[in-house]
Amino acid sequence: MTALEQRLSQFYAYVARMQHYREALALMAWDLRTGAPPKGVSARAEAVGTLSEDVFAMAVSERMEEFLGELEPVREQLDERTRALVRECRREFDRNRKIPRERYREFVVLTTRAESVWEEAKAKGDFLLFRPYLEQIVTFLREFVEYWGYEEDPYDALLDSYEPGVRTRDIDPLFRRLREETVRLVGEIAGTGRRPDTSAFLRSVPPDRQRELCRWVLDVIGFDFEGGRLDETVHPFEISLNPGDVRVTTRYEPGDVRTALFSVLHEGGHALYEQGIDPDLAGTPLWTGASMGIHESQSRFWENLVGRSLPFWERYFGELRHRLGPEWAELTLEQFYAGINDVAPSLIRTEADEVTYNLHIFLRYDLERALIAGSLEVRDLPEAWREQSRALLGVVPEGDAEGVLQDVHWASGSFGYFPTYTLGNLYAAQLREAIARDLGDWDGLLREGELGAVLRWLRDRIHRYGKLFDPLDLLRRATGEEPSAEPLVRYLRNKYGPLYGV
Amino acid sequence: MTALEQRLSQFYAYVARMQHYREALALMAWDLRTGAPPKGVSARAEAVGTLSEDVFAMAVSERMEEFLGELEPVREQLDERTRALVRECRREFDRNRKIPRERYREFVVLTTRAESVWEEAKAKGDFLLFRPYLEQIVTFLREFVEYWGYEEDPYDALLDSYEPGVRTRDIDPLFRRLREETVRLVGEIAGTGRRPDTSAFLRSVPPDRQRELCRWVLDVIGFDFEGGRLDETVHPFEISLNPGDVRVTTRYEPGDVRTALFSVLHEGGHALYEQGIDPDLAGTPLWTGASMGIHESQSRFWENLVGRSLPFWERYFGELRHRLGPEWAELTLEQFYAGINDVAPSLIRTEADEVTYNLHIFLRYDLERALIAGSLEVRDLPEAWREQSRALLGVVPEGDAEGVLQDVHWASGSFGYFPTYTLGNLYAAQLREAIARDLGDWDGLLREGELGAVLRWLRDRIHRYGKLFDPLDLLRRATGEEPSAEPLVRYLRNKYGPLYGV
Repeated sequence: MTALEQRLSQFYAYVARMQHYREALALMAWDLRTGAPPKGVSARAEAVGTLSEDVFAMAVSERMEEFLGELEPVREQLDERTRALVRECRREFDRNRKIPRERYREFVVLTTRAESVWEEAKAKGDFLLFRPYLEQIVTFLREFVEYWGYEEDPYDALLDSYEPGVRTRDIDPLFRRLREETVRLVGEIAGTGRRPDTSAFLRSVPPDRQRELCRWVLDVIGFDFEGGRLDETVHPFEISLNPGDVRVTTRYEPGDVRTALFSVLHEGGHALYEQGIDPDLAGTPLWTGASMGIHESQSRFWENLVGRSLPFWERYFGELRHRLGPEWAELTLEQFYAGINDVAPSLIRTEADEVTYNLHIFLRYDLERALIAGSLEVRDLPEAWREQSRALLGVVPEGDAEGVLQDVHWASGSFGYFPTYTLGNLYAAQLREAIARDLGDWDGLLREGELGAVLRWLRDRIHRYGKLFDPLDLLRRATGEEPSAEPLVRYLRNKYGPLYGV
Repeated sequence: MTALEQRLSQFYAYVARMQHYREALALMAWDLRTGAPPKGVSARAEAVGTLSEDVFAMAVSERMEEFLGELEPVREQLDERTRALVRECRREFDRNRKIPRERYREFVVLTTRAESVWEEAKAKGDFLLFRPYLEQIVTFLREFVEYWGYEEDPYDALLDSYEPGVRTRDIDPLFRRLREETVRLVGEIAGTGRRPDTSAFLRSVPPDRQRELCRWVLDVIGFDFEGGRLDETVHPFEISLNPGDVRVTTRYEPGDVRTALFSVLHEGGHALYEQGIDPDLAGTPLWTGASMGIHESQSRFWENLVGRSLPFWERYFGELRHRLGPEWAELTLEQFYAGINDVAPSLIRTEADEVTYNLHIFLRYDLERALIAGSLEVRDLPEAWREQSRALLGVVPEGDAEGVLQDVHWASGSFGYFPTYTLGNLYAAQLREAIARDLGDWDGLLREGELGAVLRWLRDRIHRYGKLFDPLDLLRRATGEEPSAEPLVRYLRNKYGPLYGV
């Protein structure tokens, strides 16, 4: 073994140890959300704190600095995987080391408190309760972006941690175009005054039957139950422990089976991504998605582009109706398809349809960018929210609970996260067009139930690479194109035009 | 803060960190047994390995040696809890440091392999497959006991890790007396030729109903569901993560509800113990049971002394029958009571009734002691097993699967563990008599459903102390008596004499 080989083996053992702590942390998080007894939560938080500290300490240790100092000068001698690993470790090292330790700790304590206060404030609809916390969070972040540094826009320093290498100037033209077209389409749809009759869905389906249905749907899209599991939680999520252990949850709303169905398709999409990463990346921080946006592209792909499409249900609706039980025998495919594609502006992002959803993101993106730039102050935020909501969605929340207090993201300090949702939608539509170019007519693929071929394409072009490449690079490699809003614009127009006759 | 106070605060932070790793390890173990996907198991094993190594390294570190070196000389200045903590840390330090590191690692690898080989050997009924592994294990243990040291009997060095401070010379007179009386009682019962009619139990109870039944039983004995949970596994167990998170599992055998019922009473007994430890001991290795024997006394107490008693069911049988469903309406209390107390020698320890159970232990205790002493060799073990089985139980296994390959304990190197099962039975009977002395007539307490008073007594005399005291000390404090076989002998005679008319 050469000196370099020996060093590399130590480096890989070091990062594997960090991954083992992360696996324990992921399991503790999963467990807290799937049924850990309430009295054990505060002690659990201590244990989580200890392991998180360990991971943090390892990421910024002198040992890590040594590894990076030795490997970066010889990067030309390293294989692709190791080069990417060194890049990721350097990013994390810099990100965490650039902020004075004491300030970082204060920020963690602040956001932990802020999340509880936010919860109370939301329940009471009282923004004033939460305002001082949000003001401090914004102050911290304005300070942090200066430590991290940026070229043009301070917001880029935040965006970078969720969507590596992507800047506001990459996003802005995409969002501008999508916004313009979305506002137009929503206006036309509203102009028809048509709303599908969704009353058929508002009948009770027992949780046991919904569970079986969700297992079936996961099976249909290719989820591997030998390497994962399905549980029930209030807020559905996906979490990965290791390459053979990828978990999803969903929620069984007795009165509306769509909640479980589309949650499980969404989380299942995230899970297919994680189950498809090259096992060779396991034990390193490259064994994860390329970015939040790419991850979201996979969940939206299966939830919307597949799961809310007509050809998919042309293939599977008969089976679904059979599994729903005899009381559903009268429901037609047309009613079903219309009922899962009801487009109308609403107040709550997480309940929005796939057309108006992005308008909720534009609203948040503009506001948080202005907050970080200093052109908007927290005290003026509720009013700014209402104005934007009126302008974009044409609806105005009555109280702040349905407005500025709607999401937890700002309380937890996650500024820069929201745009990745819309990036996910954009990426997904681009991937869909690329698949159709490579494999043939999209509708035909779904109608024939060729989901295996679609999944193999995603595995081959996206999943297996894990975090080897930055998101826009990965997208270019997969599609041969620059990021663009046109595929999503086309998709929405071609789908909803005929459906609403506009 | 004085220098000592500062040192103590560092010491407590150090052991708390170890407990946090242990909590993560406990959760990983629980998860592996309650539904972790099979493909994730090998990666999980790596993560478990890393965290176990961390705990081990901390327990034998120079830092720990420094703490002990500083605190032991000033032990008179320390409070009771800290003195016990220092004692426990010293025990673990010595136990792990006395064995050459390389030998210990080899032993861990050997037993890990031996467990898989044992599983295969048991399935095939082929002792020869397992024999070389068991021979090596015995060789290791004969070597280890010399490192650890002992006063009289090498077996004491093994026993000490499960039952601190208890030696073979403490056990022998108790076991001799119990054995003599058990053999006599079993002979008398067999002489009657009577067996209760248990056919009523062999009817199907759906898992959902059994689950509800188990939740009810746990509730009746005082299990706190806010601080614990119930799950289903093939092999029932209890595991504690932290003072507010104590978990039990049971098994729903569709054709015999007794399996679930008595498993949950048994594991529930373990759980009541853990839920009753003084929270002030949390975050230290004192937050656990005093010994395996004391722990087992609590499980057997609720499973047998309460759960297989007539007065308990005089109080609860009506409710049980109602919960079992209308098809059980004909079952009488007398039939039920006889059916849960069917005494007859059998081959399998885990399925034995409470009278013959201890005979299975005596058999194993004698054999493993002889193996360690060198008066028995592994090649002669199967024959020795058959001889002992004939002598003690009057039955002889046809193959080794039901004989010497029956239990996993030897494959995992757990020599010295078996006697704690019978110690648990002995302790439990002593506690029962002490409770009757303090609270009044035992049957009356159960008949009136005064389980809360019984549990409070156990909490006050046993549970809250955790591992502050060694087991025999704890027993003396709780009962005011020396360990004795008489309470169990009396209990068995008084219960089974009338039941079988002997």
